[in-house]
Amino acid sequence: MDRAVAEALDRDDPLASFRERFPIDDAGPIYMDGNSLGRTSYAVREALDAGVRDWQEQLVSGWSDWIELPAQVGDRLGLLIGAGPGQVLVCDSTTVNLYKLVDAALSARPGRMVIVGDANDFPTDRYVLAGLAAARGYELRLIGSNPITGLDLAELAGALDERTALVSLSHVNYRSAARLDLDAVTDLAHRHGALMLWDLSHSAGAVHVALDAAGADLAVGCSYKYLNAGPGAPGYLYVRKALADELRQPIWGWFGHQDQFEMGTAYQPAVGVGRFLTGTPPILGLHAVSAGVELLLEAGLDRLWAKSQALTAMLADLIEARLAPLGARLVSPGNPGRRGAHVAIAHPQAWAWCSALIDGRLVVADFRTPDAIRLGPAPLYTRFVDGYEAIERMEAVLTSGLTANPGDRPRVT
Amino acid sequence: MDRAVAEALDRDDPLASFRERFPIDDAGPIYMDGNSLGRTSYAVREALDAGVRDWQEQLVSGWSDWIELPAQVGDRLGLLIGAGPGQVLVCDSTTVNLYKLVDAALSARPGRMVIVGDANDFPTDRYVLAGLAAARGYELRLIGSNPITGLDLAELAGALDERTALVSLSHVNYRSAARLDLDAVTDLAHRHGALMLWDLSHSAGAVHVALDAAGADLAVGCSYKYLNAGPGAPGYLYVRKALADELRQPIWGWFGHQDQFEMGTAYQPAVGVGRFLTGTPPILGLHAVSAGVELLLEAGLDRLWAKSQALTAMLADLIEARLAPLGARLVSPGNPGRRGAHVAIAHPQAWAWCSALIDGRLVVADFRTPDAIRLGPAPLYTRFVDGYEAIERMEAVLTSGLTANPGDRPRVT
Repeated sequence: MDRAVAEALDRDDPLASFRERFPIDDAGPIYMDGNSLGRTSYAVREALDAGVRDWQEQLVSGWSDWIELPAQVGDRLGLLIGAGPGQVLVCDSTTVNLYKLVDAALSARPGRMVIVGDANDFPTDRYVLAGLAAARGYELRLIGSNPITGLDLAELAGALDERTALVSLSHVNYRSAARLDLDAVTDLAHRHGALMLWDLSHSAGAVHVALDAAGADLAVGCSYKYLNAGPGAPGYLYVRKALADELRQPIWGWFGHQDQFEMGTAYQPAVGVGRFLTGTPPILGLHAVSAGVELLLEAGLDRLWAKSQALTAMLADLIEARLAPLGARLVSPGNPGRRGAHVAIAHPQAWAWCSALIDGRLVVADFRTPDAIRLGPAPLYTRFVDGYEAIERMEAVLTSGLTANPGDRPRVT
Repeated sequence: MDRAVAEALDRDDPLASFRERFPIDDAGPIYMDGNSLGRTSYAVREALDAGVRDWQEQLVSGWSDWIELPAQVGDRLGLLIGAGPGQVLVCDSTTVNLYKLVDAALSARPGRMVIVGDANDFPTDRYVLAGLAAARGYELRLIGSNPITGLDLAELAGALDERTALVSLSHVNYRSAARLDLDAVTDLAHRHGALMLWDLSHSAGAVHVALDAAGADLAVGCSYKYLNAGPGAPGYLYVRKALADELRQPIWGWFGHQDQFEMGTAYQPAVGVGRFLTGTPPILGLHAVSAGVELLLEAGLDRLWAKSQALTAMLADLIEARLAPLGARLVSPGNPGRRGAHVAIAHPQAWAWCSALIDGRLVVADFRTPDAIRLGPAPLYTRFVDGYEAIERMEAVLTSGLTANPGDRPRVT
């Protein structure tokens, strides 16, 4: 394929106009890191402005409007992940949400003393599991023999038994983009009597997710990647409706109380998912998440996922054709049915390559230790021609030779 | 005293010009709720604007600037609470920070199975203690026979023994404004071998606090009251330097890891207070806290505390002279040496009174169940004449009679 093909794909792209919803400098480097930190949309910028004005004008009386935001924005966000109303809250960070859900899940399966996770999962996911396993005397089984293709169903089945309390996995791997089958894995966990928790950080907003349909029990995710809510914007959590009232949330704060303003003596958890709130929710962050979610809903999840698949398919083809002859290789699943919304490319000098791309203001990608570069084309604002041009620039850098020692690794997330 | 005295106090106020740093509509109601939600300063508004532009321009590469913000803003905030560098982080919510510190404290005092707290403390403080006590098999002793004057040292001493792991108290009571002696109480806890944790939510930014000098072990607080960082802005935590490396933080996230970007197999907590970070920190919220803190530092904590004491002394006098004859009474300590930065007023129809003040756009105060109104004059932007006028309007409403049933209670925080 050549540039003309990419241009034709852009002409036919039903989402092409959404790029105009973001301030983008076409003379700048090509941003292929929307899977790490999404761009700033005009909508989010305006929502933050309006949120500050609202605070200024309403002051404390604003709480009558704000207090339901975690649940209201959660319900809207739920539309992106196949979750009906009353099951999603936007609150805290992904890590804190994961902690709350894992701790609650363990208490809900007494006598079962094993947690199953993915050895190749994102660090925070593994660490939260390890911390709770150590504190509560659980065995943590981290499996995953192939970091590129991701967990195999047979491998997972071999790790599950009647001692498994919880299976906690990322839907899409942060590094390889390996995508698990949400339905089949959830079903497998349930057949062994375990609860199933999904981290959707690398899926929501780009990849098809249907939590209710899968019968998933619990989920968490972040809002600063494909949801474009800004660095460190609040995370979210999902608790299956029928399960919520059985769960004990470990962090008892006043926002999780059934009757918060009674300020009574005893803690009485709210009915439903509301018990998973903790302290005062971050109102400006919630406005940003809201605006980010609404923009995605306007684009439509089916169109986002279709475009994302077309973008990564094009990148995979170009990597094979243009970069493989120069010593790079795709380390994401070759099968699009097993891939999320980004691709990873391994190269022995990946760090020098990534540095040259960033320092030369050619492509913003990110390095993942020890030898991979990730390209995350956000379907809302990345053009096909951006993907094409990124590969051309990556090829040119490899062809012209890499510096042996490009200095410190970048501290990107 | 009359209005002329208040006007004279304003003329002599060295902080008078700080009111101009906030957009304030003099025709609006008198805002006496800075102890619940602080006003929006121009500085915070600009910091948020700049933060959004910074995100837009830097995108993911901004993390090289942002990653140290929790500690950098923490060090600056430390100047408001008498904490030397390397001991304060701005992160998560107050509730989540309290949970992390309490859990860590319990693990650091093995064999001691009692937590001592204040039965009259803010709900989230009591709930977090109750939740952890229940989960970990601790006895929670909530003491405090007099909600108005606050904990008595003798009463506290009677509750402490060699089984006490942790004493967790608010420096200033959220309702009565009763202020504990930070030094004496910390010393008492230490004499029994317990760790001492302070909630500074109702002190920091208005009341003199010197954590290092008191030898306090742990502290938390919020940034949306006197720090003016906006609704639900991030909380903060303090861990005494010599103690940090002994503590096990329960929520293991990637930001608390010693070498975050190695993304290694095992969790290795950061050296020092850094291990108390969890997930990705909220960058816009950190910019807001930073601007809020800098404005207070510019004003000077000694001047803020002096003005705060003068404001509450004036209010206490006026309550006695003008409202007591109408059935209201001060339910804050009469002794200024035992009072924080706000005052509470009880009245049998407090809710109807508070509603009339708010609905009539006369005074924004807040109601605290069952029978109190709080007035929180923030020394940074509240004039003496505001306090005087607030009491006049409160008097006028009482004199003209209250509605029996003013409808639902307001959902203010």
